[in-house]
Amino acid sequence: MRALQSLALRFDGKRLAILDQTLLPGAEVWVDVTDPRAMIEAIQKLKVRGAPLLGVAAALCLACIAEGGASHAQLESDALWLRRARPTAVNLMWALDRLRHVLERGGSKDDLVLEAEHIFLEDVLLCEHMAEHGAALIKGGESLLTHCNTGGLATVGVGTALGVIHRAHLQNKRIHVFVDETRPLLQGARLTTWELEKLEIPHTLITDSMAAILMREGRVQRVLVGADRIAMNGDFANKVGTYGLAVQANFHGVPFHPVAPYSTVDTHCECGGDIPIEERGASEVLGFRELQWAPEGTGAFNPSFDVTPVALVTSLVLDRGVISQAELKAGKLALGV
Amino acid sequence: MRALQSLALRFDGKRLAILDQTLLPGAEVWVDVTDPRAMIEAIQKLKVRGAPLLGVAAALCLACIAEGGASHAQLESDALWLRRARPTAVNLMWALDRLRHVLERGGSKDDLVLEAEHIFLEDVLLCEHMAEHGAALIKGGESLLTHCNTGGLATVGVGTALGVIHRAHLQNKRIHVFVDETRPLLQGARLTTWELEKLEIPHTLITDSMAAILMREGRVQRVLVGADRIAMNGDFANKVGTYGLAVQANFHGVPFHPVAPYSTVDTHCECGGDIPIEERGASEVLGFRELQWAPEGTGAFNPSFDVTPVALVTSLVLDRGVISQAELKAGKLALGV
Repeated sequence: MRALQSLALRFDGKRLAILDQTLLPGAEVWVDVTDPRAMIEAIQKLKVRGAPLLGVAAALCLACIAEGGASHAQLESDALWLRRARPTAVNLMWALDRLRHVLERGGSKDDLVLEAEHIFLEDVLLCEHMAEHGAALIKGGESLLTHCNTGGLATVGVGTALGVIHRAHLQNKRIHVFVDETRPLLQGARLTTWELEKLEIPHTLITDSMAAILMREGRVQRVLVGADRIAMNGDFANKVGTYGLAVQANFHGVPFHPVAPYSTVDTHCECGGDIPIEERGASEVLGFRELQWAPEGTGAFNPSFDVTPVALVTSLVLDRGVISQAELKAGKLALGV
Repeated sequence: MRALQSLALRFDGKRLAILDQTLLPGAEVWVDVTDPRAMIEAIQKLKVRGAPLLGVAAALCLACIAEGGASHAQLESDALWLRRARPTAVNLMWALDRLRHVLERGGSKDDLVLEAEHIFLEDVLLCEHMAEHGAALIKGGESLLTHCNTGGLATVGVGTALGVIHRAHLQNKRIHVFVDETRPLLQGARLTTWELEKLEIPHTLITDSMAAILMREGRVQRVLVGADRIAMNGDFANKVGTYGLAVQANFHGVPFHPVAPYSTVDTHCECGGDIPIEERGASEVLGFRELQWAPEGTGAFNPSFDVTPVALVTSLVLDRGVISQAELKAGKLALGV
């Protein structure tokens, strides 16, 4: 496999490594994930995260296993194992299924490696296309609000929602970004601020509970978020807090756009109710890292994602173009956008 | 002054002390606030907090200064100084103005001390009345959602919103409480859970961003919050995040009730726009206590409160009874409820 490098994933010709995102922005530590066991642990502990990046990382891991001389049966088994590492983001399953189809079609290990490389390179291009389509929606001087992290740390390109924001910035649209901190794991406070600072895009960090008052004060013109899985009717799952943000945007008349590559669309899900939602442990809500601030033993609710109905989506930004709510409701996704 | 004791405030006959709420639930440390300088520092650093408690604590502090032999002029000056310690909660100003009126009427130091004692004892009774009126709204088996801390740590009685919840629990209404963690200072995660655990009331901690999905799933039947200042038209200021919660409750058809004593009503504020909102430092948003998770130098928005318009209030629970939105809009508060 050729050498590949993105902000949070690299293959140097021998070893596959990910940037441990749980340690950002305090420390930049790369972790070897050439072995599937290490990759699965990295996925489950969120060292590697972001729906598109999960797909690419898992595909490259399977390619490494193939190059290491694994049998066809072993590859099939590892693909299924990797596929189950996290339940909600469909890109992980989508990428591994692409590689499984290569094997099923009787493809060689070289074919499989090539397909994994293509998945990486395609993701870069998909991001460029989303950025182009999404940035066209943004008017000069707009303040944008985003949730979680959807940039170079969540993809191997410029990102989904954050890629759109970056493109608008490069187009000199004088944008300002409000960043939801995104409790419980603070991907906004830790990762999105870190990326925006590197990109020199003006931004302000807020707690998730402050988005509403900014909208009421007319200080947010548009909300852009990522997506972990999109159902055929346009409902979509994304990081917990997205649904509440969509309600706020609807109430205040602020346009609301999920941004995702077509690989996030799950043709097996008719509506949001079909999307499995990962529940994580209470400890993530009781504190952060080593600091626990709630009383020991407190019970907590901790869904990692929530589902936003299509009725709250102004339009969906895909790599293939922008799809309006009316088009989503008319079943445009089922027609194979 | 007679000895007085509540969950977070005590006067032993000589010294006035507050329970340092910034250290809860990890440590229970009492801080001497007999001196006005210490009291103001405790107020500004949120060691003592909660709109009703702030009023009572400041009144007792002025009574201590009077008993210590301060001149009339010194008492006037200290009252004005204490009055300005925090800008949003009106109870602080209300309590100190009651003591200033005693001085203006030519009252003795004994009169002033008696008035401070009355403020303490009245707050206990006001909480009982709010609890009675509010609990009557709650049906058996309801799940309630609350924000910030409004219990025995925020008053010298059973609390405002949490007092209502406690009373409903004592009435065997089989309630369950969802507790917003309340970023940035986590009063819900640290203080409300601590109180609910002591009271043995079943509860579940959530991040602020999870309230919306609970409402969508039909898992919350009612929202109860406190208030730091209520304008004459029924708009009210409360801990940041309250406004967003009111929008969610409205969108999902969930009844929403602020709970407060009449001393929270400010006859000088016609509407919410007249309420001054305290802005605090960025560091509270960049992390918590000694742990900073956002990149150094990140800009943040940090209003300590937000304003909820009367249009989102189902009814206001006062010590004097429950006032419906229609009554609020008809100007019932101006008629001196």
